Amino acid sequence: MNDDLILLGHGSGGRLFHELLDELIVPALSQGAPAAQDDAALLDPPPGRLAYTTDSYVVDPIFFPGGDIGDLAVNGTVNDLAMMGARPLWLSVGLILEEGLAKRELAAVLGSMRRAADAAGVRIVTGDTKVVPRGKADRLFVNTSGIGVLEHRLTLGGAQARPGDRILVSGTLGDHGVAVMAARERLDLPEPVASDTAALHPLTGLLAAELGGALHVLRDPTRGGVATTLKEIALQSGVDLRLRERDLPVRPSVGAACALLGLNPLYVANEGKLLALVAPEAAARAVELLRSHPLGRDAAVIGEVTAAGPGRVALELLDGGVRIVEMLSGGQLPRIC
Amino acid sequence: MNDDLILLGHGSGGRLFHELLDELIVPALSQGAPAAQDDAALLDPPPGRLAYTTDSYVVDPIFFPGGDIGDLAVNGTVNDLAMMGARPLWLSVGLILEEGLAKRELAAVLGSMRRAADAAGVRIVTGDTKVVPRGKADRLFVNTSGIGVLEHRLTLGGAQARPGDRILVSGTLGDHGVAVMAARERLDLPEPVASDTAALHPLTGLLAAELGGALHVLRDPTRGGVATTLKEIALQSGVDLRLRERDLPVRPSVGAACALLGLNPLYVANEGKLLALVAPEAAARAVELLRSHPLGRDAAVIGEVTAAGPGRVALELLDGGVRIVEMLSGGQLPRIC
Repeated sequence: MNDDLILLGHGSGGRLFHELLDELIVPALSQGAPAAQDDAALLDPPPGRLAYTTDSYVVDPIFFPGGDIGDLAVNGTVNDLAMMGARPLWLSVGLILEEGLAKRELAAVLGSMRRAADAAGVRIVTGDTKVVPRGKADRLFVNTSGIGVLEHRLTLGGAQARPGDRILVSGTLGDHGVAVMAARERLDLPEPVASDTAALHPLTGLLAAELGGALHVLRDPTRGGVATTLKEIALQSGVDLRLRERDLPVRPSVGAACALLGLNPLYVANEGKLLALVAPEAAARAVELLRSHPLGRDAAVIGEVTAAGPGRVALELLDGGVRIVEMLSGGQLPRIC
Repeated sequence: MNDDLILLGHGSGGRLFHELLDELIVPALSQGAPAAQDDAALLDPPPGRLAYTTDSYVVDPIFFPGGDIGDLAVNGTVNDLAMMGARPLWLSVGLILEEGLAKRELAAVLGSMRRAADAAGVRIVTGDTKVVPRGKADRLFVNTSGIGVLEHRLTLGGAQARPGDRILVSGTLGDHGVAVMAARERLDLPEPVASDTAALHPLTGLLAAELGGALHVLRDPTRGGVATTLKEIALQSGVDLRLRERDLPVRPSVGAACALLGLNPLYVANEGKLLALVAPEAAARAVELLRSHPLGRDAAVIGEVTAAGPGRVALELLDGGVRIVEMLSGGQLPRIC
């Protein structure tokens, strides 16, 4: 029976640790030749600037409709690289396991990481595993860091928004946050909602290649949702933004769930959507490009940069009123990623 | 009062999260210009192969004599890069905070990370912070990943040991593990023991530059200690090793503490020591090089590679007997790093 569970000894660095590595972790994650078990991976970078990022994943529950902590951890870090316009190349994986975790759950998560990495065309090249006693973690935490290469000379970033820019979102809002929340609270939603977790570099690659210098900002609206991410961009760029509620794409099932849960989809996390700020003359082409890919088929222009300013974000409501949008205040949805 | 503690809302991605970033984390960790808060750092790598590694740190307690989880997380990842013969360049930092952690403890750990990074000449270029509810983590877990550049053409690694090689250790065994264990159990040791946490790339740089192709293996004997690390090398290289107990450098205070705790210093973790396997004719020079640096002043030859073989490690005991050394079995010292 204990053979099926993670033991404290699996984190010791000794015999049990090597058995876990050899029997479960390395076969699940290694793509191609078995990795030499040295202290670091050796890599030959292609020419160009590199992008480098890290994210830890503590989502609760670790399995949810549409994904699990494994593909979330791969896609999330791939997306952070993609938002700098980089082509993702390599990932590291750091696991913190709680004593008593079922090995088959770990295996399922690792399998999911591997499939997500294969789908995204990235290689998991280095890793680490720690075990903490029962009650000192919550089943499984995952850290991924990632390295990508910039194959363009664009200057992208939250500080690059300019007056007149159109604000695009690549699809519907709030799917991930609602899916996780419903799974955690075991809610019976009127209609099921699945996480949108996906690797977005096909979309960002398309936009960078086709729009060139008309592409100013790429960001993925994860924790804090579209509202918080746009507020960050407004502050970073020193501009004011205006959104139109009627143009925000929200699935009816997500809208209904948000109403039930008292959530605003503008603040709910997404894990397979991007925001793009583009020069006005490029907006129609950008929508067309996004919609040409399955990940962007619900893309829409949702607002624009109105002027240089202190970083105000205004939302035109359905009833014609205007509301000022601030960052998420407090923890609307803890442990969503 | 609550102003002094980490709240769940600090992990939301919203306003509290940005306050924590702007007031505490970014000022503590950023070296030089404030980082643009984009999804990834942009880096210009020097020419050469890159080394890439990751490690999570879950040490209990987070503060211990000689260091804390912060400098441990910086030095540990720097050392993983150094053991491939790389010059460490950049680190990422992923923090998982337990709700209720005191902000001043977090500040102390971040300050310690910053000082360790400055001392090692590496830059912390990207990071991430998550918060989990009380009881779902143990105060603070830290992941660091790192990138370094190889400035030599040597082939180093656990599989490069050859018959005749001499086995060197750069200093005394078991200091880190005993220091952490004594702090955790609140033991009153006859003599205080401090962790040896330190960045070892000055030593590895010296050995790689001066020994060239006579340098075969570099490893830092962390979890599982010198015994487990040498067993790994023996298996990776397909060779048998012999150690001499009389040549193992152990501080009297650590020896006494190990006797008290029923530990064998050969299996206790080190965080500022390296093992080097070098061609026999280079051994004297290697010891001299190590001893020329304060981090290597207790360096010693502790054994040799006897022959090609199935990976046996033998220990010549003080009384003339011989014992076979296996990997650490089970968890002698959990959560030591």
